[in-house]
Amino acid sequence: MSEILELLELISRLLHAEDVLLLCHKNPDGDTIGSAAALQHALKNLGKNAAVLCADPIPARYGYMRLEPYTGQFTPGYVVAVDIAGIQLFGDALQPYVERVDLCIDHHSSNAGYADAMYLDGGAAATAEIIYELLRAMNAEITPLIADCLYTGLSTDTGCFLYSNTTAHTHTVAAALMEAGARVEDLNAILFESKTRERMAIEKVALDNLEYHFEGRCALMYMTREEIAASGVNMSDLEDLTGLPRKIEGVQVGVTLRQLPGASYKISVRTVKGVDACAIAKRLGGGGHARAAGCELEGNLDNAKAAVLAEVEKELKKLDEAAGS
Amino acid sequence: MSEILELLELISRLLHAEDVLLLCHKNPDGDTIGSAAALQHALKNLGKNAAVLCADPIPARYGYMRLEPYTGQFTPGYVVAVDIAGIQLFGDALQPYVERVDLCIDHHSSNAGYADAMYLDGGAAATAEIIYELLRAMNAEITPLIADCLYTGLSTDTGCFLYSNTTAHTHTVAAALMEAGARVEDLNAILFESKTRERMAIEKVALDNLEYHFEGRCALMYMTREEIAASGVNMSDLEDLTGLPRKIEGVQVGVTLRQLPGASYKISVRTVKGVDACAIAKRLGGGGHARAAGCELEGNLDNAKAAVLAEVEKELKKLDEAAGS
Repeated sequence: MSEILELLELISRLLHAEDVLLLCHKNPDGDTIGSAAALQHALKNLGKNAAVLCADPIPARYGYMRLEPYTGQFTPGYVVAVDIAGIQLFGDALQPYVERVDLCIDHHSSNAGYADAMYLDGGAAATAEIIYELLRAMNAEITPLIADCLYTGLSTDTGCFLYSNTTAHTHTVAAALMEAGARVEDLNAILFESKTRERMAIEKVALDNLEYHFEGRCALMYMTREEIAASGVNMSDLEDLTGLPRKIEGVQVGVTLRQLPGASYKISVRTVKGVDACAIAKRLGGGGHARAAGCELEGNLDNAKAAVLAEVEKELKKLDEAAGS
Repeated sequence: MSEILELLELISRLLHAEDVLLLCHKNPDGDTIGSAAALQHALKNLGKNAAVLCADPIPARYGYMRLEPYTGQFTPGYVVAVDIAGIQLFGDALQPYVERVDLCIDHHSSNAGYADAMYLDGGAAATAEIIYELLRAMNAEITPLIADCLYTGLSTDTGCFLYSNTTAHTHTVAAALMEAGARVEDLNAILFESKTRERMAIEKVALDNLEYHFEGRCALMYMTREEIAASGVNMSDLEDLTGLPRKIEGVQVGVTLRQLPGASYKISVRTVKGVDACAIAKRLGGGGHARAAGCELEGNLDNAKAAVLAEVEKELKKLDEAAGS
């Protein structure tokens, strides 16, 4: 009951606000942009001023969401942070608002609670899922443009309904957005069917440098700083490549080594259920989660490979012993 | 109204049948297997005999669906073809049933109509979507195992809700299956997060042999028969690689050349909206659709490449002229 009252209170404040500034996190992704854009359109459709501020440029492929950038065109009367888990994600341009956030709407259960009021749902796959419920509760029309924005948040944060954060509710919202006119075919082509030439170049390097160890139970991939520089790829484009070796059939430990500009190697370890990635990384001075962990090693490629493979071997032996006992 | 009566008639016959033989198409995929398995479990839960016949082996990764193979354990009293668009997809083992199919359940609008009765919905993304509605109409319980089978059909036929056949109804059914207990996280890992070593090997070849033409507007990839043989990959595993070149940013025509065992080249052409893939393939003796077409060319790699690139250039010029006019 109190939850409903809290939600009504939030909606009442939003509906009374006039000049609403919406904040996105730095290095903006589909969810922070899509959620802010949806809210911006809904508020403008109610006759309010609304615009969006982000410390980094909005990637060109998200142009269809028609985000209105905040450039001082009004004096903010109400400030809403969208999909921002903590103030470390504000970036330079958002610093003036660190202590002035009236409302934070987010799905990260780790949210630091820096705002005056929170609308947090840790079970939502994306902040867009929460914005959808908010707009419904506000009785705001879900226009086709708003549906496009929310579908973008929903689908990008779930890898197109693939990741384990996807719930029945996520699919229910996706269905409602399609019925509201989301251009899902075009959006999926933009969001999931497009690769840069730089990304293709580094994938070639990664596959050229793919090795199998321990009878195929470990796959290891490396990229030197010269190879990374020659491909022209962004460091952020490299991040999800680290998931690749573990996806190969029979592989229990996937290892990726990326040489950093300073010449040390950044090592990512991904494992199947039952193999402790964190134990491997920890013994090399790193850390992380049970299935995804990492560390950084000085020295040349051969030394870095030998060090991580020795730790991988120990964990595989543990697994065999556990299976044998 | 007559549609509802037809459905009631179908259900009545299914509910009166005792020994039900379910047929899958050859080279079975997630939808034909998942749909047949779901129906098998539902019929067995109603106390009937039910088993599944397929001309080709069921891939091991689908073992979790607990398909019961038909090996003559009962005399079929009612024969249901599941997701089979025409008798050319029966294969050898199903030949005795070509003229004995009592009911065909399918989502291919091109279905040849070989069965006594049809339950066809060309708007369904997968046959599993139709089976879900059928089981609901039959008042059959959707057990977690049945939900797993139907989710498999739904997700594999839509590329995990990515392809343009995905509708709001597809997402609604996915939500219902998750609520019925489908183990979506485990299934997605099996169905979408796994690659064979052979597939990795041929992807390396494809990226090594990737070329850009016409200022990056055409990407071309080739694989010789020696390279294909050395990778150990199945021809069927090669099929979806042909989508890759067109996904690269800025590419309007993607071309893939695969050398066949007889030494000729099989050429696949994929285009963006506005470029006619079929026109390119047709002038080289092939055919297909507006965005996906193909042909076969005798001769060596250089000749095959030159021939297809000449046709690509013509279509790109047409596009420029149309844009300029």
